[in-house]
This record gives sequence, structure tokens and C-alpha cells, in this order.
Amino acid sequence: MVGFWHRLGTKGKALYSATLSPPFSSPLNLPHIWVPTQTPHRPLSSGFHRATGQTQSAAEIMSGKPIAKDIKLRVAAEISRMKAAIGRLPGLAMVLVGYREDSHAYVHIKLKACNEVGIETSIVQLPQDCTQDRLIDVVSSFNSNPSVHGIIVQLPLPQHLDEETIINFVSPEKDVDGFHPLNMGNLALRGREPLFIPCAPKACIELLLRYRVEIIGKNAVVIGRSKIAGLSTSLLLQRHHATVSTLHSFTNNPEQIIRRADIVVSDVGIPNIVRCDWLMPGAVVVDMGTNSVKDPNSPRGFRTTGDVCYEEAIKVVSAITPVPGGVGPVVISMLLSNTLDSAKRAYGFT
Amino acid sequence: MVGFWHRLGTKGKALYSATLSPPFSSPLNLPHIWVPTQTPHRPLSSGFHRATGQTQSAAEIMSGKPIAKDIKLRVAAEISRMKAAIGRLPGLAMVLVGYREDSHAYVHIKLKACNEVGIETSIVQLPQDCTQDRLIDVVSSFNSNPSVHGIIVQLPLPQHLDEETIINFVSPEKDVDGFHPLNMGNLALRGREPLFIPCAPKACIELLLRYRVEIIGKNAVVIGRSKIAGLSTSLLLQRHHATVSTLHSFTNNPEQIIRRADIVVSDVGIPNIVRCDWLMPGAVVVDMGTNSVKDPNSPRGFRTTGDVCYEEAIKVVSAITPVPGGVGPVVISMLLSNTLDSAKRAYGFT
Repeated sequence: MVGFWHRLGTKGKALYSATLSPPFSSPLNLPHIWVPTQTPHRPLSSGFHRATGQTQSAAEIMSGKPIAKDIKLRVAAEISRMKAAIGRLPGLAMVLVGYREDSHAYVHIKLKACNEVGIETSIVQLPQDCTQDRLIDVVSSFNSNPSVHGIIVQLPLPQHLDEETIINFVSPEKDVDGFHPLNMGNLALRGREPLFIPCAPKACIELLLRYRVEIIGKNAVVIGRSKIAGLSTSLLLQRHHATVSTLHSFTNNPEQIIRRADIVVSDVGIPNIVRCDWLMPGAVVVDMGTNSVKDPNSPRGFRTTGDVCYEEAIKVVSAITPVPGGVGPVVISMLLSNTLDSAKRAYGFT
Repeated sequence: MVGFWHRLGTKGKALYSATLSPPFSSPLNLPHIWVPTQTPHRPLSSGFHRATGQTQSAAEIMSGKPIAKDIKLRVAAEISRMKAAIGRLPGLAMVLVGYREDSHAYVHIKLKACNEVGIETSIVQLPQDCTQDRLIDVVSSFNSNPSVHGIIVQLPLPQHLDEETIINFVSPEKDVDGFHPLNMGNLALRGREPLFIPCAPKACIELLLRYRVEIIGKNAVVIGRSKIAGLSTSLLLQRHHATVSTLHSFTNNPEQIIRRADIVVSDVGIPNIVRCDWLMPGAVVVDMGTNSVKDPNSPRGFRTTGDVCYEEAIKVVSAITPVPGGVGPVVISMLLSNTLDSAKRAYGFT
């Protein structure tokens, strides 16, 4: 259909218009981005010979580890520069309610990463039965503390606490998770810049950009619509001008829609649910699933796996993120980057 | 793929999940909804006999006029009840900058509708070269005026004024257009309720619901992504659990994607751009385009037409909104409904 969208330029007095904003800038505002060597611009069509029907294991493994390492090094360098110039460090505050093994594991990973780059941290741990008012008091005290530039309320909260109300109380200026509705609204609205973009979609885009996957104009499918990952990734991919379809539990025949996608982002939470015959040969897959499966051979008795059946997918796709070691490490480094950005804003340091 | 999404119920400790919220309630919070008589539940598959390839003009014309009339009657009745009970009326304030024929026409329509139902209105008209500070002063005075429950800054603004900054200044509690990022974020995030939903998507959903079009699980395509219509309609359709794909100027082969859609919402701004061979037989079409085309036979020299080639489409689709007389009248009635809701909230009147 030559000229369909081209004709958009010719429209006159339209009440509604499909105007454009420039492509959203790279989520990272730091110089000297690491890119993998010898990675060609991704054609979105390798790995499968249509003529012979033969597959070849040519899929590029989009490891997040070198990207995370690179971001951490650059965040650490910026923090050193800030400390030398104005004698200040970024500060991240975390609130944990009750005890959940997975939440504690995530908090531990975040603490370790902050320590590596020089971000000051403080944690408040409240009992499982703490009141909503008590939790709001803690958040409010972090809001008014000038040494705190990022606040994380570790989710999920116990059932008796209202997650939305608590997130509303986090100052949008310190909302490094990007879950406040004001930041989410500014992410949805083109032409606006949210103060923070959630870390998981930032990580997804960063992986795609660093591995030189073309996003603009591509058909992208996001499976799942959580605010942590699926919803916000849909919004961010759309800002990068992908044509985005968001699938969820009510979607009929999801595999048919997934099979037409150039880029597949999975945020389901079920191990190995996405099989190779759902994937278009040459597609690029970003697997956001982090699922624990029993594994008697592992010293911990379980291992972590993604939503996508990796062994099958690598025979079909042109690029895929592994789990673990794909999106996860980049998510953590994005949290450091968001916290640094917040501190720079607070101190007017550029 | 039996059991794919079913298995969602079995997931364990997933970092990311595709959890559900209940279907978003009908945008209108008023009793006694008018529905067309003798309208069966829409099967999304009439109008075309696959066996013979013959089309029949069985498309239902989804007129917005009776719906708008019904909503206006109910809003007027609620306003009478409020006046009798507490002696107060809803108030809508509008700000116009400079002179644009289309903007003045829209404001005129809104004023007339407000007058019909008993909403008090005030308009401030500023010169084309007014400063941003002056415009903000006007908005701020409306924000602090307790008799004003809704504020509309008529868009587009002259180039020297920053639309985003101005919209940020509209109190989210009086943002009857629903364009404030806080309301947009709360629309995007399931489980949250925005204070206001933009009128165009509300009108779209209202038309679908009243004409008994099933939304849940259907493939919906929204062509265009303006905040006024396309973007917010994508978000609202998704809250109603449609599988939504949002198309825009960078989309490759839009007609292929449109052809797979059960529900097509057009927000392009180009007359007759969507042709019948782009539409799936039996699809439901909501045409949000309001385009002026020259017409020497019209006393005004022009007539209004939609984005969809109506004469072609009615031979293929199962239901379609006309232009004019489809979405437009419902949009205006939604503005009245939003203003009434705001006044009720302000006065604690239920």
C-alpha cells in the first residue's frame, strides 16, 4: 500500500491526527556506550533457510552481562566525578515489608550493585502486619530526606496493604522504579519525558539497541501487561516506533499473533511456555521471564529459567536473551542509572 | 493452543506476571442505559457469505445520536436532582487562544450542549500572541475557583505556547479532557481508576457496548496514536481486555494488520483512507476521523467525512459508525458526563 502513511503529510484540518514525535532517545544518558564487536545490523531474518527448510543455529545470544558491566562502570565513573566536584553521592532507600525469599534475594542483589558503584543505601524492614499508615510514614520520611534520591517499595506487598496508594505516596522525583502514575502517563504520552522509565523496559530497549536490532516500524509483540514489565515495555517500544501488539490472558490464539512478530518480548511468568513453532524464523526474542523450576542437580534444588523454550528457540530465531544472564543484569544496572540521574537532577549536576 | 493462558493460573514465584484485573466498568456511571432495540449480540461475522463471495448490505449503522441524546437526558436529570438537593450546578470553564475556525466551532458545540443540560460555562478568550504566563494565570484561577469543575484548554495552541506545560497546570481533579499525565497514567495502569478518561475513547467504548459488540478477547486495531483519541482508545480497549495493536506512521503494511482485526478504530485524519479490502468481512468499525472535504453541493462548500470509505465498508463490515453522526455526538455527551462526575465528586453528591 504505497503512499498510505505518506499521505499523512497532506492532511488538512483533522480533528484527530497521527502526528509524529522524534524517536525517543536512548534510555541512557551516558557517553561511550559499549556495543558488542562484530555484530552486524540485525536483519531479523537469519537462522532459517526457507528454500531447504533447514535451520541453522546462528542465533546470536544477547547476553546482558557485558552491557550491565559497561553501564555499572560508567555509572561508577559518573559518581566519582560527582563526588569530586560537589562532595555528594546518590542515595537509594528501600522498604521491605514482611519476609519473602524472592524479595529479599532481589533486595540483596540491588544492595550489592549499589555498593559496587558507590550509591549509598538505606533499608527499612517492617513487620508483615505493619499498618498502611506506618508504611506511608516511612515513605514520606524518605521523600523529605535530601540524601535520598531514589525510593523502592519492594513489591509485592502483603495483601492488607494497598499497593496503588503506597506508590502514589512515593515522590515522582524519587520514583526510580518508574511505577508512579505520573511517570507512567508521561511514558505513554509522546512528546513528554517521564522523570523515570521502569527498569525492565529500559533494559529491553537497551539490549535491542546495543545488539543493533532495528525497532522502528517492526512488528513487536509483548506477551503480558504487568506494570513492572509488559505494559511499560509496550509503551516504550511504541515510543521507539515499533508497531506493538500487547497480548494477555484474554487473547485468542496468541501463538498466531506471536508468529507474525519481528520482535517478541515475553513477560508471562511460566517456564518454557513459548515454543519454537510460535516464533517467526529470524525473530528477535527478549525473555523477561524469571521462573524457578525444580532441579535436583542444582545445589539450591532449583534453577532459573525464562518463558521461552530456549533450546528450541535458538534454532529458529536470529537473536535471543538467555535466562539467567539476559535481561536481569541490565535491569539492575538501569536501577543504578536511574538513581544516578535522580541525584544529578537533585543537585543540578551535569 | 489449548491451555496456554489457562496455565497462567498455575504460575508460582514469577518476577513478572500477566495477572488480571476485572474488566473495566462501563465508562458511564449512570443508570438506565439506552440500548438500540432489536440489536442482537454482535457476532463479528455477518455481511459476507464466504461460500458465494457475495456481500450483502447487512451492516448495522452505529449511530451516535440516540446514545448522545440518552446520555444528555440522564445528565440533565442528574443535574436537576443535584440542584434540588444541594442548590449547586456543575461548571465548565474553557480557554481559547487566538482564532481558529475549527476550534471556535468545537467550543460552540460544547457551549450549546452544556446549555441544554444545565451546566454553567465560562469562556476566556486570549489573543493569539498571549504569553504562557498569562495562560497559566487563567488556568490557575479556574483551578482555584470552586464553581468550576471542569477546565478545557482548547487545542491546538499557537506554536509559541507549550501544550504539555499548560496541561500540567490543569488540576487533575478538573481535567475533564483526561489529558493530564496523571489521569493518563492511571488509565494505562490496570487496577487504577483515572479521575477522567478522555471523551473520544469513552465514546468509542460506549458505542461498542451499547451496540452490544463483544470487546473482551477480540483483536482490535487502533490506527493512529494521538492522546486525544488513538493512544487513549488503545489503553481503554486494553482495559476492556481486547488484544490491541496500535498502528502509526511507521507501521509497515498497515492494511495487512487491519485485515485481521475484529474491531477497527480509525484516528488518522485522512478522508476515505481505509478501504473495504483492508477490512475483515464482519469486522466492526469505529471511525473517529472528522475530515473536511470540498463539496460544491453543500451550502458551506464542504462536508465532513471520516477516515473510512463508508460506501465500500458497509458492504463488508457487520457494523460501522457514520461520519458525521457517529462518534462525534457521543464525545460531546461524554464531556457533559465528565463535568457532572467532577461536580458530584467536588460536592460529595452521590
